[in-house]
Amino acid sequence: MQLPSRVQVTEVGPRDGLQSEPAFIPTERKVALIEALAAAGVPRIEATSFVHPRAVPQMADAEAVLASIRRRPGTRYTALVPNARGAERALAARADELNVVVSSTEAMSQANVRMSVAESIAACAAVVRLAEAAHVPVACAVTTCFGCPYEGPVAPQRVLDVVARLVDAGVAEITLADTIGVANPRQVEQLVQAVQARWPQLPLGLHFHDTRGLGLANVLAGLQNGVTRYDASVAGVGACPFAPGATGNITTEDLVYLLHELDITTGIDLAALLDAARLMREVVGHEVPSRLLRAGPRPVVPAQP
Amino acid sequence: MQLPSRVQVTEVGPRDGLQSEPAFIPTERKVALIEALAAAGVPRIEATSFVHPRAVPQMADAEAVLASIRRRPGTRYTALVPNARGAERALAARADELNVVVSSTEAMSQANVRMSVAESIAACAAVVRLAEAAHVPVACAVTTCFGCPYEGPVAPQRVLDVVARLVDAGVAEITLADTIGVANPRQVEQLVQAVQARWPQLPLGLHFHDTRGLGLANVLAGLQNGVTRYDASVAGVGACPFAPGATGNITTEDLVYLLHELDITTGIDLAALLDAARLMREVVGHEVPSRLLRAGPRPVVPAQP
Repeated sequence: MQLPSRVQVTEVGPRDGLQSEPAFIPTERKVALIEALAAAGVPRIEATSFVHPRAVPQMADAEAVLASIRRRPGTRYTALVPNARGAERALAARADELNVVVSSTEAMSQANVRMSVAESIAACAAVVRLAEAAHVPVACAVTTCFGCPYEGPVAPQRVLDVVARLVDAGVAEITLADTIGVANPRQVEQLVQAVQARWPQLPLGLHFHDTRGLGLANVLAGLQNGVTRYDASVAGVGACPFAPGATGNITTEDLVYLLHELDITTGIDLAALLDAARLMREVVGHEVPSRLLRAGPRPVVPAQP
Repeated sequence: MQLPSRVQVTEVGPRDGLQSEPAFIPTERKVALIEALAAAGVPRIEATSFVHPRAVPQMADAEAVLASIRRRPGTRYTALVPNARGAERALAARADELNVVVSSTEAMSQANVRMSVAESIAACAAVVRLAEAAHVPVACAVTTCFGCPYEGPVAPQRVLDVVARLVDAGVAEITLADTIGVANPRQVEQLVQAVQARWPQLPLGLHFHDTRGLGLANVLAGLQNGVTRYDASVAGVGACPFAPGATGNITTEDLVYLLHELDITTGIDLAALLDAARLMREVVGHEVPSRLLRAGPRPVVPAQP
């Protein structure tokens, strides 16, 4: 089994995980969570989202979050931005990277950002121009790459067309996102190989939801095809509020457990990450999908018979 | 991605799933569950266990269960037996196949069956002799192949030694079991390849628990190495009562969803299987790990934006 020796985990819990929590989570709790994740060695954390507070009230404190965290050297704090206005705010708040979301289907694009796919790509290009002037890289997540809740199956060629326009717009990285958790390992392999064949140098990431239990099997397919960047949400919280039937991202600690068991380096301390997961569970105040929080990592000291 | 075109799913929920339920489940409920699974097209169902009722009170009605089910042509009803006495009972009750469990570690063997590994293999050989006379095949599950709760990591050579003695004893099939859910995909590949290299014709199956979320990723590794038989438990219920920290088997409907998404034939009707899963959830009367019961299969009719 050929696998990469090192993988970068991007933690999206503070943004993708928390955005659909109904009760507002105080800024200091969000900050504590981000700091616990950074302390565990998570190299990249999507800290917040500079969307309009009316669209996602949970992220109304984006500036305060980025201003309050003690920044750990070596950790990259990224922010989701929907448009140039959001990018200006994120740059002013000193986000290390910007993340833009573009849908691969028209219906999801309208539901998520109230723009056509072309308008959304143009908004992404505007973000890239602003960020370039500030020497901040822009990553782009392409949603519903493996299926859309409104349009059904999505042909790989549609995804490739969107990626081509994003590459032209100057995005630094592309993440293929399975927004509603319908991807399967063979489909992951096919889409990844198609993107790699056309853009061999493009830094590629994968973003899976564990809606139907295939999240980590899809990660395995990504690893076997050389993909070295994965999004995950600590404790497994979250779901896109605009994608019906969606559930949480894959769970960061379950992903890191898998990677470490496969002898893949992440730079993350799993015990410290489990502390962050317990904090997340406390912050949201409800049950979370995390398997590792329940089972614990593989026992170091064997139980006595 | 090279995958088999057909896989046999063995349902173990009525036995492995129910055995640790504290309240006795009435025989007619067990029978209804088995009949629902057979109606969904599950080709092989571990229906019960002929252990001593004091050891596993939940299985005290083994004879009554096998006598009561309306047998569906083409479905194989198997029974777990711990020894010759259990085999005699199972054969008298007209089980289609017998399943024996042998541990790969001494501590697990003592905890599970109060015998040494050698004694357990001898017991299996005695079962094979009885079953041969009745023309009934005997399968053997080797537990703790990937790690033991008492002894820690298990070297592949120890598993191969146990398999060698079981093959000599005349078992028809071997299932490699990850009793406590510590296997990872690379380890699955290595052990499967080692067994296949030594016994290329031996029918091989895999039995995973989803304790740490890697169950279906491990199935993918098995599929990629040509393994065409997997155990699973409907609704994801169950845990070995003698293996500390163990949780349920992989979930049958999540497994079948994965297989069908990969264009692998199972002969199972997923919608009917979900009916059986709902029945199982009702029978045990508590929350179950099944992802598909919550999310439903991939939507056929897209949602409206």
